[in-house]
Amino acid sequence: MTYCVGILLQEGIVLASDSRTNAGIDNIATFCKMTIFERPDERVIVLLSSGNLAGTQAVISIIRQRAADAGVTGPTIWNARTMFDVASAISDAVRDVEKRDAPYLAKSTPFNASFIVGGQIRGESVRLFRTFAEGNFIEAGTDTTFFQTGEEKYGKPIIDRVITPTTLLSDAMKCVLVSFDSTMRSNLSVGMPIDLVAYERDSFRLSARHRFETGDAYFTALSEQWRDGVRSVFRKLPDVPADGSHAAQDIPTINPSDS
Amino acid sequence: MTYCVGILLQEGIVLASDSRTNAGIDNIATFCKMTIFERPDERVIVLLSSGNLAGTQAVISIIRQRAADAGVTGPTIWNARTMFDVASAISDAVRDVEKRDAPYLAKSTPFNASFIVGGQIRGESVRLFRTFAEGNFIEAGTDTTFFQTGEEKYGKPIIDRVITPTTLLSDAMKCVLVSFDSTMRSNLSVGMPIDLVAYERDSFRLSARHRFETGDAYFTALSEQWRDGVRSVFRKLPDVPADGSHAAQDIPTINPSDS
Repeated sequence: MTYCVGILLQEGIVLASDSRTNAGIDNIATFCKMTIFERPDERVIVLLSSGNLAGTQAVISIIRQRAADAGVTGPTIWNARTMFDVASAISDAVRDVEKRDAPYLAKSTPFNASFIVGGQIRGESVRLFRTFAEGNFIEAGTDTTFFQTGEEKYGKPIIDRVITPTTLLSDAMKCVLVSFDSTMRSNLSVGMPIDLVAYERDSFRLSARHRFETGDAYFTALSEQWRDGVRSVFRKLPDVPADGSHAAQDIPTINPSDS
Repeated sequence: MTYCVGILLQEGIVLASDSRTNAGIDNIATFCKMTIFERPDERVIVLLSSGNLAGTQAVISIIRQRAADAGVTGPTIWNARTMFDVASAISDAVRDVEKRDAPYLAKSTPFNASFIVGGQIRGESVRLFRTFAEGNFIEAGTDTTFFQTGEEKYGKPIIDRVITPTTLLSDAMKCVLVSFDSTMRSNLSVGMPIDLVAYERDSFRLSARHRFETGDAYFTALSEQWRDGVRSVFRKLPDVPADGSHAAQDIPTINPSDS
């Protein structure tokens, strides 16, 4: 499994990925799932990959090879004029790998590679996309400001409750780490290290680039402070009123005489 | 979908279920998923059902019919001497419905019914079980004090962070409601009303029996106070240190010259 998150904010963008891959519970490894493309002062593009490792690695290698090849027709990471064109270039690579591999994988692990890609190219605003295994993709907007891939559910409520388009980059970074903490508690196939970057709009270079290893002191303190804070909010919540305002006559209640 | 939770505590037990059933996004209905069996001063047994409605209703009808039939051999809800025997009686009913229906359902929606069952029979302690579609079942202990069925993931982190065996019934009730709130925000197939009961050990009658309808004032206040409290805990968390202690040289970073 995998857990990746990208959050689009007015201030910029935050992206994070875990590093665990597994082919069965007895076959665990560590691979970085984040790739950064940076041409300082002109473009910053961050890619988070999830799916079968052979597929995602092939897609990234193709993207890199095409970017380095001056003879390539169509958009590449370096010549794309918009982030939409970057997402299209990723989509093309996904479909090429799918065409090559799918027939051979149909009976084992089907081809599956999806990406979160965010960043900014000079001339347009910060943008965030999520591609699907089929190569089609969607873009975040002001209503839905974040994308998750992989094990999404455990870590979603905290993002739902905290993140708005005006959240600061520094707060969004903490939120993402709490979201990873919640996820890792419940799914052993999501694991450290966590790679986390932040990009401030119109700066055209990453403002933060962090890796949190197992046992990291800051991450541990954050996790404990969060847990204690949540418990304290909890203790202050009003008790369920015992005044009969929630009487539940409609719950079927069976006594020996009428069952 | 469905969301059901049962939590076993030193003080007793808390159980809750949502009421939404759906057969496709355009076919939504409301059915209570909780059934209470009560012989005051002697036993209290609460059943939460999840799975295909036809299957769970059939299981409950069989349990009720057998309980009312003095000629039945084997344990029933009323003559079972232990909660283990109650879980076995449910298991028997699950397997009987499965035998009858499975061949006819194999090509459409496979038979699927699972239950959370908790309560106390005089002579033993409070116990909590979870049955699977195959009819086998597991019991909660001091290491794992709660069971969830249906849409479990969104609402699990809050239970993980708050509940311990010594949590008070009143706190566990609030925790369950927050867990439902998190779940309903993300999965439209889990919906109000929420049925919630609490049982205090050795009392042999339910101490609380509540239904929370859509728009309930207390539930809304709880949800808002929780959200605001979480945001405030959040603002006090320490920022990610910018001192280079989490430098991430290992994230692949590609510049135009080397891609």
